[in-house]
Amino acid sequence: MHGLHLTADLQGCPAAAPAMTDRQALRMLCLGAVQAAGLHAVGELFHGFAPQGVTGMVLLAESHVAVHTWPELGAVTLDVYVCNLGSDNSARAQRLLDSLLDAFQPTQVLRQQLLRGMPTEPT
Amino acid sequence: MHGLHLTADLQGCPAAAPAMTDRQALRMLCLGAVQAAGLHAVGELFHGFAPQGVTGMVLLAESHVAVHTWPELGAVTLDVYVCNLGSDNSARAQRLLDSLLDAFQPTQVLRQQLLRGMPTEPT
Repeated sequence: MHGLHLTADLQGCPAAAPAMTDRQALRMLCLGAVQAAGLHAVGELFHGFAPQGVTGMVLLAESHVAVHTWPELGAVTLDVYVCNLGSDNSARAQRLLDSLLDAFQPTQVLRQQLLRGMPTEPT
Repeated sequence: MHGLHLTADLQGCPAAAPAMTDRQALRMLCLGAVQAAGLHAVGELFHGFAPQGVTGMVLLAESHVAVHTWPELGAVTLDVYVCNLGSDNSARAQRLLDSLLDAFQPTQVLRQQLLRGMPTEPT
């Protein structure tokens, strides 16, 4: 299955940002960003860790989004994976990643990406 | 946050395998494989698509697992992402990916990996 997997690993994120520590704030951020990017949420899972840190996973019709926060370290990791079955969702994935990234206001970012699926597959 | 993200994109998976089409079968496979690998599930989300295909996401104390199936194409994608906060979970991640992969009996596999987190971060 051809697709694009974008990751961003963030440092220097202000721990006071609600989405760093609050499950509901992270949920609103993720679902809003998915919708604004033109992608389609079909399920969601948000979890708060003790003593701190939250994780959000949004299942998309186009694949998935995952966010993990470590407020005690000012760290966040972002994953946006879209399959390109039927249409090329690459630009939407980029838009979604950018909007999540902007919300955490990091001082340092490592972006990486994987092209998913084998070259021999039909497109 | 330092971590290891493993992916495998599978082709030629028999569509008759229960985990390709059945949400509960995929759930049992994923949760069993997580436990056998020595990792720790703290949340889960499994979704069946119409007319076919299932997705499973397991939130781990160590990060996450995601599985997407396309039985009509014999395709499956696997993600295992572990952060290495406190201990190196790389071998556990590899074991988990291998056991999921074996369950789908693909004829072709593309494996990739990303080292997550910035070199400048403290380990």
